Formats: sequence, structure tokens, C-alpha cells
Amino acid sequence: PDWNFVETDGEEQLQKIFKLKNFAQAQAFTNKVGDLAEAEDHHPAILLEYGKVTVNWWTHAIGGLHKNDFIMAARTDAAYNDME
Amino acid sequence: PDWNFVETDGEEQLQKIFKLKNFAQAQAFTNKVGDLAEAEDHHPAILLEYGKVTVNWWTHAIGGLHKNDFIMAARTDAAYNDME
Repeated sequence: PDWNFVETDGEEQLQKIFKLKNFAQAQAFTNKVGDLAEAEDHHPAILLEYGKVTVNWWTHAIGGLHKNDFIMAARTDAAYNDME
Repeated sequence: PDWNFVETDGEEQLQKIFKLKNFAQAQAFTNKVGDLAEAEDHHPAILLEYGKVTVNWWTHAIGGLHKNDFIMAARTDAAYNDME
């Protein structure tokens, strides 16, 4: 599935829900995305739940989406594919 | 601040927003709460953002709150106090 465009607090964001096997796998994926974020100093919102991680990318400084968000979304997909 | 009662998808939950110094600290706290959850096999929703972690506890099986959720909330507070 693709990333969806959602609006949160008036800012356009890229959102995708990733399915994982259980909570531990979801936590591991959360850390992968968090490590990606730290490496690029660009930070998403990551919602960690049992078997599911929801990731939102956006650029707060411009109140919406920047090319970098799409790059980070693609890297998030790659990190997810590495989990399997 | 105390935990708030919120309703999500028709289920009553305990929610609290924890402030952290930056993303790395927020990720570290997310892992502390995640490890607590795994140890008890009782799983919250954890929203990880820059400098902020929102934790929701509830018992899906009963569609609301159980004594265990209050215990986990107290343990989450203790884990947060250990961060400082």
C-alpha cells in the first residue's frame, strides 16, 4: 500500500500504517525508523501499538511536505522490507 | 500532571503526555515503556514524537480500563522519573 496524505493540526503529512507480527516486532521497527530519523535530524511521529506502527512524515518548519519527507518515506519502506 | 481519561474508538483509556529533551530521549523512553509492556504482556499505544511521548493504557479485551492499566500507568511514571 502507498502512503496517504493526511492533515494533522492543519499541516499536510505523509502517513502509512505498517503491520508487524507482534509488539516486539513493532517496537523493533519503531527503533529502525527512529534511528533513520536521528541520522537525518528529521523527525516523524511514530505510533507504536501491538502488531502495528503508524508513521507520519512532514516538515514542521514549512507546515507541510518537503521533498525530504518523500525520501524519508521511501527509506521507511526499505527499513520495513528489511524486517521481513 | 495526572493521567487523563480519554475515549478512543469507543474504549476508555488512560492517557498521559511525557515531555523529553529531544527525539533520542523520547525514543529511549518509548523503549522503556515498550519493555515494561512486553514483560507484563500488556500493551499500550505509544506515540513517539520529537521531545514528547504520549502513552495510552487500556484493556482491549474488556473494551476499557482494568486495575492492571492503573498499575502500568504508575510503572510508566516511575520509568519516566528514572529518565531524569
